[in-house]
Amino acid sequence: MKIVVDAMGSDDHPGPDVAGAVQAAREFGDHIILVGDQAKIEAELASQNTSGLALEVVHANQAISMEDKPSQIVKNKPESSMHVGLSLVKVGRADAFVSAGNTGAILAVAMLRQVGLGRIPGILRPALGVIFPTKQRPMLIDNGANADCRPEYLVQFGLMGSLYVERMLNIENPRVALISNGEEEGKGNELIKETIPLMAASGLNYVGNIEPKQFMQGAADVGVTDGFTGNLIMKTAESIASYMSGIIRDELMANPITILGGLLTRSAFKRVRAHLNPDEVGGAPLLGVNGVVIVAHGRSNAYAIKQAIGQARRIVENQVVAAITSGIAGER
Amino acid sequence: MKIVVDAMGSDDHPGPDVAGAVQAAREFGDHIILVGDQAKIEAELASQNTSGLALEVVHANQAISMEDKPSQIVKNKPESSMHVGLSLVKVGRADAFVSAGNTGAILAVAMLRQVGLGRIPGILRPALGVIFPTKQRPMLIDNGANADCRPEYLVQFGLMGSLYVERMLNIENPRVALISNGEEEGKGNELIKETIPLMAASGLNYVGNIEPKQFMQGAADVGVTDGFTGNLIMKTAESIASYMSGIIRDELMANPITILGGLLTRSAFKRVRAHLNPDEVGGAPLLGVNGVVIVAHGRSNAYAIKQAIGQARRIVENQVVAAITSGIAGER
Repeated sequence: MKIVVDAMGSDDHPGPDVAGAVQAAREFGDHIILVGDQAKIEAELASQNTSGLALEVVHANQAISMEDKPSQIVKNKPESSMHVGLSLVKVGRADAFVSAGNTGAILAVAMLRQVGLGRIPGILRPALGVIFPTKQRPMLIDNGANADCRPEYLVQFGLMGSLYVERMLNIENPRVALISNGEEEGKGNELIKETIPLMAASGLNYVGNIEPKQFMQGAADVGVTDGFTGNLIMKTAESIASYMSGIIRDELMANPITILGGLLTRSAFKRVRAHLNPDEVGGAPLLGVNGVVIVAHGRSNAYAIKQAIGQARRIVENQVVAAITSGIAGER
Repeated sequence: MKIVVDAMGSDDHPGPDVAGAVQAAREFGDHIILVGDQAKIEAELASQNTSGLALEVVHANQAISMEDKPSQIVKNKPESSMHVGLSLVKVGRADAFVSAGNTGAILAVAMLRQVGLGRIPGILRPALGVIFPTKQRPMLIDNGANADCRPEYLVQFGLMGSLYVERMLNIENPRVALISNGEEEGKGNELIKETIPLMAASGLNYVGNIEPKQFMQGAADVGVTDGFTGNLIMKTAESIASYMSGIIRDELMANPITILGGLLTRSAFKRVRAHLNPDEVGGAPLLGVNGVVIVAHGRSNAYAIKQAIGQARRIVENQVVAAITSGIAGER
């Protein structure tokens, strides 16, 4: 197994990206190709123990930042680490691509005819799936690849999410739901209302419309939404969790008794944080492109990068791309 | 000041609705008109100390449930407590209407020509505002009245929200933002992108697009969104807060040390809960209708109903409807 890691991806690149790649090479025994500024990558590697690991560096002249507009990357940065890295997967020199960089840019480059992977035949729009870090680990799709969607896209998101959780989480006949502002008939916006009959006729195990609460509680294995709404749901969840942690921390410092209580409950809060830690579930798979692409969080540390690489290798092993390819062919 | 309370509104009606009205009559000294099943209301009142309070009961033959579809209420339940209550405001016998009932039904009845209040002239669509229970108390609008929106609606939501927080929270020149999936140019769905130039030209203190995190941190006083997205943001926030409380509770029970710690930190968690308690901020004002309407949470207890009544009276005192009426007239 060969996995490409964009060394210029994370907010603090290339430190976490390189360190995560080294951890993955050691833990999984895979061949990891680090793509980016060769001098910088080698400086990072020099500070790591890499003996016996299959690590390769491929130089890229440019790096895409969070400020780069996806629409201008094609013209302005044709030699970025994303271009070079994805083309290695395209030509078959590697099995998967992992980046903690600019999501819009990864999408745009992945879709380029020259270097990108393009779509799986029949897929209208690739979508970002994300495993929600609540106990039941449901998948939310789309998490931001498509701000505006048509009903047919949503049905395909349901199909891709369904095949993903079936292969990756061993869930038989996964339950697929639309995320909506109510479960009752008549609820939803126009997009949801138009999607309902298509979902019902899709052959998916469509279980209806659910609200965020039911979704978090595991009422479906796959929650389907347009990328704008999905992205806001995910960002709201992250923000509230971090906001609550902050006010709990503040309130625990209020007086000596609560400070003592805070010390005694430290192990419990450590488990709460681990439980809700998005790093645990890896990155977001970009489903529908003709190859394995994982988009990790920009704030990823080395551990999160390592987890994302582990997820990429499991997607390869479980042949998720082949499953989507035949799934969509069967649908047509 | 006379305020109508829908006694048939909350999930456990008429208990919390009547008890909240009694508390409000005592605390604020207002005249409260309870509308609903007279026998049931009087039975509840009999269990309360109401001496010296200005409480009136007006009978309504029907009650609208959460299962009633707003589209069928006009035909099926023309004598509901919502119809009767809102008509009291319409004819000038009362100053405001408070209900913890079916939101869609309140909207539908409020818009009826015969008994309802109708729109303020020039308002395209009324919207639900809701004060977000984080420290900075920003307003999110629309919180669910309009699942599908046009750019002009969003600009008016911004205007109404702006006038509301100016009058109610004494914020001068409130900052208005669009809630989006990113702050950068080019982010947003089609609706957001089309709304940006209108907002910029609106004369509002438009400060750009913000993500949920910045919104919660108070980067704007008013966050504007379509009702579908706004409703899902609010529901996600509530669900995550309650999910986190649940796992914290579970983890604190893990062993004797954390149990002891849990006891010592009880006061801190009580403050955390109070801080995030949506009951504190009252209900959601339905802005843009030609009168004062507050939609309280279906799960409201007596305290939440009392708070919603307090909010209604402050909206009347601060002449928010008049402010919106002249604000929208100035815009045209």
